[in-house]
Parts: sequence; C-alpha cells; structure tokens
Amino acid sequence: MSWVEGAAGSSYDTHNLPYGVFTHGDAPARIGVRIGEFVLDLDGAEAAGLILAGGALRAPSLNEFMALGHAQWSAVRKRIVELLTDPAHRAVVTPLLHPLAEVTLRMPFEVGDYVDFYSSEQHASNVGQIFRPGEPPLLPNWKHLPIGYHGRAGTVVASGTPIVRPCGQRSTPDGPVYGPSVRLDIEAEVGFVVGLPSALGDRVSVEDFSEYVFGVVLLNDWSARDLQAWEYRPLGPFLGKSFATSISPWVVPLDALAHAWVPAPVQDPPVLDYLRDEPHLGLDLRLAVDWNGSRVSEPPFAGMYWTPAQQLAHLTVNGASVRSGDLYASGTVSGVRRDQVGSFLELTWGGGEPVTLADGTVRTFLEDGDTVTITATAAGADGRTVSLGEVTGTVVPARR
Amino acid sequence: MSWVEGAAGSSYDTHNLPYGVFTHGDAPARIGVRIGEFVLDLDGAEAAGLILAGGALRAPSLNEFMALGHAQWSAVRKRIVELLTDPAHRAVVTPLLHPLAEVTLRMPFEVGDYVDFYSSEQHASNVGQIFRPGEPPLLPNWKHLPIGYHGRAGTVVASGTPIVRPCGQRSTPDGPVYGPSVRLDIEAEVGFVVGLPSALGDRVSVEDFSEYVFGVVLLNDWSARDLQAWEYRPLGPFLGKSFATSISPWVVPLDALAHAWVPAPVQDPPVLDYLRDEPHLGLDLRLAVDWNGSRVSEPPFAGMYWTPAQQLAHLTVNGASVRSGDLYASGTVSGVRRDQVGSFLELTWGGGEPVTLADGTVRTFLEDGDTVTITATAAGADGRTVSLGEVTGTVVPARR
Repeated sequence: MSWVEGAAGSSYDTHNLPYGVFTHGDAPARIGVRIGEFVLDLDGAEAAGLILAGGALRAPSLNEFMALGHAQWSAVRKRIVELLTDPAHRAVVTPLLHPLAEVTLRMPFEVGDYVDFYSSEQHASNVGQIFRPGEPPLLPNWKHLPIGYHGRAGTVVASGTPIVRPCGQRSTPDGPVYGPSVRLDIEAEVGFVVGLPSALGDRVSVEDFSEYVFGVVLLNDWSARDLQAWEYRPLGPFLGKSFATSISPWVVPLDALAHAWVPAPVQDPPVLDYLRDEPHLGLDLRLAVDWNGSRVSEPPFAGMYWTPAQQLAHLTVNGASVRSGDLYASGTVSGVRRDQVGSFLELTWGGGEPVTLADGTVRTFLEDGDTVTITATAAGADGRTVSLGEVTGTVVPARR
Repeated sequence: MSWVEGAAGSSYDTHNLPYGVFTHGDAPARIGVRIGEFVLDLDGAEAAGLILAGGALRAPSLNEFMALGHAQWSAVRKRIVELLTDPAHRAVVTPLLHPLAEVTLRMPFEVGDYVDFYSSEQHASNVGQIFRPGEPPLLPNWKHLPIGYHGRAGTVVASGTPIVRPCGQRSTPDGPVYGPSVRLDIEAEVGFVVGLPSALGDRVSVEDFSEYVFGVVLLNDWSARDLQAWEYRPLGPFLGKSFATSISPWVVPLDALAHAWVPAPVQDPPVLDYLRDEPHLGLDLRLAVDWNGSRVSEPPFAGMYWTPAQQLAHLTVNGASVRSGDLYASGTVSGVRRDQVGSFLELTWGGGEPVTLADGTVRTFLEDGDTVTITATAAGADGRTVSLGEVTGTVVPARR
C-alpha cells in the first residue's frame, strides 16, 4: 500500500499504476503514472535517477518505453512500487507528484495501426438479427476466425475530446442524401496496446501475447449507423467510423490485470491450431455505460468469444508486422441481457424501442449535447479492485 | 534542361524532379531529388544554404517538408530547377550528386493512415461478375460515393522489398483450412500522398485538393484472394491485404503532372454537391504491368470513375482529419480490354483462363519467385514524358 495520501486501499493503489501522458502548466507533455488522485512525473523521476529506463520515460508518449519489452516493463513497475510504498523515498518523490486536478491528460501514445475486431457473439448476433432479419444471425466465417478490419489511426482521440457529429451520405427511398448523421451511436469496447514490435513476415503466436501487449484502454468506437449502412458493401465500414474513436487516458498494464483472467467461452466448432490458446482465458472486466449520467448498460467483457491472444495471433498470422503503439480493439462488448449491450443500436433494437433516461428524456440514438461515459473495473490481488478509469465524450453539432 | 550529365531530354529532367529518401554508404537516410540517373542530396543542399526550407529537408523522411504546404513546395521546386539548370551552380551542386547505382532507396515518407479506394468502374464490374455471376455487377452505392476502406499503414513497404507469401485461412468444401495462400495476386494502383494536415472536424473540399496533396506514387496492393474471399463479410478485406503493400520510391510532385490532367468520365447519375468537381479531371497516367518480364497489361488511369479530388473530399467529409504522410490509393486500375486490367484475378478471369508468359510458363496466380513490376508515364510540358518510376516486388515462399 502506498504512502501517497488517499491512495492506500483505493482502486488506484500500487496494484494498478496505469501509465499516461500529461501536461502541467506550460511544461511539455510528459509520461506519468497514476497513484491515487495524483500523477507521478516519470520524466522527472528518470531525470533524477530514481528510475532507469534508458531515457524511454523522458518522452512525450509511451511508444518508446512500450517498445522495450516485458522485462523492462516489469522492472520499471517494480521500481515504481518501491518508490511509492517505501516511506524512505517519500521526500524525493513527493515533489514529483501532481494532483490530478492540476494536470491535463493527453493521448498516451501515438497510434500506429488501429484494428477493430467484432468478437462478441451476442453483439454480432444482435446486429445480424437487426440488419438481416430472418437469416442466420452469424455469418459462416464468424466462429472460425476473429473478424476484424482496420480503422483510422489518425482520429483516435483522448477521452474528453468533443465529438463533432459527422456529415455524410445516407440512403433514403428517394436516393442518397447528404447531411449530418441521424443515427449516431457508440460502441463500448476494450483496446489492447501493442508494445514490442515484430518483424514483417513473422507471426506472433497465442503464447507470446504477454510479451507483445503492454496494456489495456477503454475505447468508444463512435459509429454513424446511417452512413455505415449505405457505404459498407463490399469493403466494410469507412466514414461511418473514421470521424473519431475515443480512448481512456490511462493505459492499465497487463501486469495489473493478472488476477482478472477467467476461462473464456468454449469455442465450438474447434478453432484451427494457430488460434488455439491453452489455457483459453479472457479478461473479466466489468464495463458500465452512462448516457447523460444514466447507467444504461453493464457489458461483461468476460463473455467475449475471441480472446485478445487469439486476436493478435490472427492479426499477424499472414506475416503482418506490429509496431509499438498499435491498437486493437475487442469489438462492441455485449452480454445476453438488454442491459448488458455495448451499443445503442442494440439497446433500442435498431432505434425501434426508445429508452428513457433518469432525467425523463427519451432517446434512440445520440442527440447533440449528449455525453457518454464508459468505465470499467476488474478484480485485483487480495480482493482489491483495479479501476480502468473512463472514456467520455460529448456530441457537438455538425459543422455546416 | 539540366546541365546534369544525361538528364537533358530524359523523362527525369527538371520537369519531373521526384522526391525520395536514400542512403549512401553508412550515412543516415536523407531526402533527395532525382535528376537523370543521379540523386541530388537535399539534406546537403539545405545544410550548404543552397535551398531554404526551414530545415525540413534535413530529415530522414519527407513528412516535415510535405507538411509545409503548396507555397513552400513550389518555392523549393523552383529553386531546385535553378540549381540544376543554371551552369553557374554546377561547381557547388556537383558534389551533392550521387549516381543512382550508388544509393539505396528507402520508404520516402512515414505513412500516417492508408486508405484504399475502389474507383475503377471496369475493375468493380469485373470483380462483381467474377464473384457474383448473374447479379448486377455494381452494388447500388458504387456510383454515389467512392467506396474505400482503411488498409494497414505499418506494412506499406518500399519497392523491392521481398513479399513473403502470406498464410491464413481459406474456405474449402470440408471447412476452413490453414496454410499459404494459393491465390496470391497483385493490384496495380496509383497512390496519392497527403502533405498539408487538416484539423479534426474540418472537411477538405474538392477545390482544395492541390493544397493538400503533395504527390503521386505507384502502388501494388498485394492481395491473397483466397484469404480475402473467406474473411471479408461483413467488415471488408483484412488479412487478405494487410501483409504487404508496395510503393514506388519516388514521389512525383503534382506540380510535375500539371500537363497530365484530362476530362474524367462523365458521372451518371450526378453526384452529390460535396463530390462535384468542376472541371472534373483525372490524371492521364499510362501504367504497365510486367510479370516476370512479360508485359501482361497496360492499365489506363485516365478512365477512373472517381477522381483523386473526389476521393479526398469524401474521405474527409465526415470530419476525419488528414496528416502529412497519409496515403490514399485509387483502387485497381482496369480498362475495358483484357490487356488493360490491373489484377491477375481479372487477367485470368478468376483463375479460369491461364496466361502464357514470354518464357513459355503458364500462370493463373503468383508463384514463389515471381516478380511483378508496375511502371507508368505521363505527358509533361512541351511534348516531354514524365516517368513515375516503378514499383517492383518478388514473391518468396511462406514461412512455416
């Protein structure tokens, strides 16, 4: 337990220690780690010789540090725990602590490639039923490989960034029209951040997952359903997704989630060898979706059909290389109950079943001014809770 | 005409001047410009005060220079022409010239996001006929918007990089199997390189195309048709494309192609306002595809249905920002005749009509050891020819 005021026993004690990038006053962006309601300036800590990471912590993004690999991640984490638990370090460390209220959180890393999977069976089934009623809800390939596609890396933004309602084409009975999206939606997801790079032509096996993946963020894959429905055949989503994808500012290292692994759903039919992970484990993250402050859903991540290790193995099985800062997301997290779905498309069943929020307002899709916040927690060691923080965003009107 | 030996009257005289990044001996990568069979070291030229670009030419990639915008691109180009045409500069410039044979060409820029369009009507129709026989060859959206998707930026490689045959899943009557692709193909395309960045939430209009786009590369979108056919529903191509995309090492500035614009095909039905470009112009680039030295196709770029200005306007109409180094490709360039198609899928009509190469060998898709080279030329001022160089790659066996 940390000596930092208020940290001991909280969900941001030394069992968590998520990494981020912050600015304080006019100073350039720096790497920090969260402890309680403070951020520890890791740039300053490395400059002072309190932590040694070959200078990788003295950078405006996590990419260089994440590229060092698992042994270095563990060593730095161990050292941070020492600094924050042993009172002997209190005097030298205290000047490097900033109250969270005094800092601005930035994008924690530069995104290399961004891939979005589609790995919740319940979500894929729901979408199939909504868009292809009367047909089998899952396509024939869905249980054989983790379906995914590349999204736009340059529009991944930090939590809090305003979401400008996108314009584009949608189909009407009178032909396509142009204008602001009228079916703006969210997708509550979990993102995995690659640290260690791989070489072109090589594969990352399911066993090597923890050598390559540094940590986890929460992710909102904002989606314009009307744009998406008109454009997506035959090459997949494009403008319906590319206007913005929000991520939480704190990257929770996988080492903080070591106690959150649980058996993943049994896969039937059996998967091909390169996708077989034994043990077959998923992360038991409990998500929550708040719409203008109303809790509308609590999606359970433990139920995802495809695991993050399988997703990475699939992503690289063709020899595609990964870079430090690559981000791959789980796909919308949906459970079996209506109050466990990760999109408003499902919550309102295609917009046909509006929901009433706590303030009495009625919604199908997002209206201008609406705020959506996704949070999550996981079990930590000794009965503690690991918080994954939040990703939030407010919709602002389209620009004409 | 340049005083550089052999340059005058060639397709790499001062009317062309493509930019690239090279290494010479053990020196770090530098920006250069091609003149005849030489590369002019622009890092050295800026260091010597011969060119002023605020230090942007003293970098290992073109990104910073491209971000300066059109006025700076023109000023630097004008100055390079002075240096290479006025014999008064010969003594100071000559030490900065390296024979091409002595340098190694690298990736000319760091790719931000990579988008691939699908803008040849003939290609889309051919693919529709091959994969959906008996149905309308074009989907309903195709003539209303330039269909596109995001590809993998991290696996865009420089011409000459060996192409490792990708492994992955393909569908068989007995279910999906894993192994090396058995239908490895090319797609001959033209890539547009964004220079000037835009802000999130803003749009780039069709009129602003030349303010944002710096230049053009040739591009081979290597495609594993068997992987692609099994995975692509409903989210589009993924592993079937993401293993490698090759580009030519020389970025030909748009200023060198000012004489190559020609009226683009009439668009019927009329497009929505944000896609209307007047005049509606395409680039008359003449591509050629050589398969193991046999000329198998000469795809005409002038026939593309959607223009690069329309593609950029569409890409950003939802407020998606662009960065310096973003790359968007035209999609496979195919003309109406069989000897004008840009993929072997079309050349052999789905693999059912093999072709015989000049050496007597017979091919449907790519075999290990095969080399494909795509070249192109365009008309320049005063009856001269602008060469776009080449993008080449050789297939090497899959790694087990």
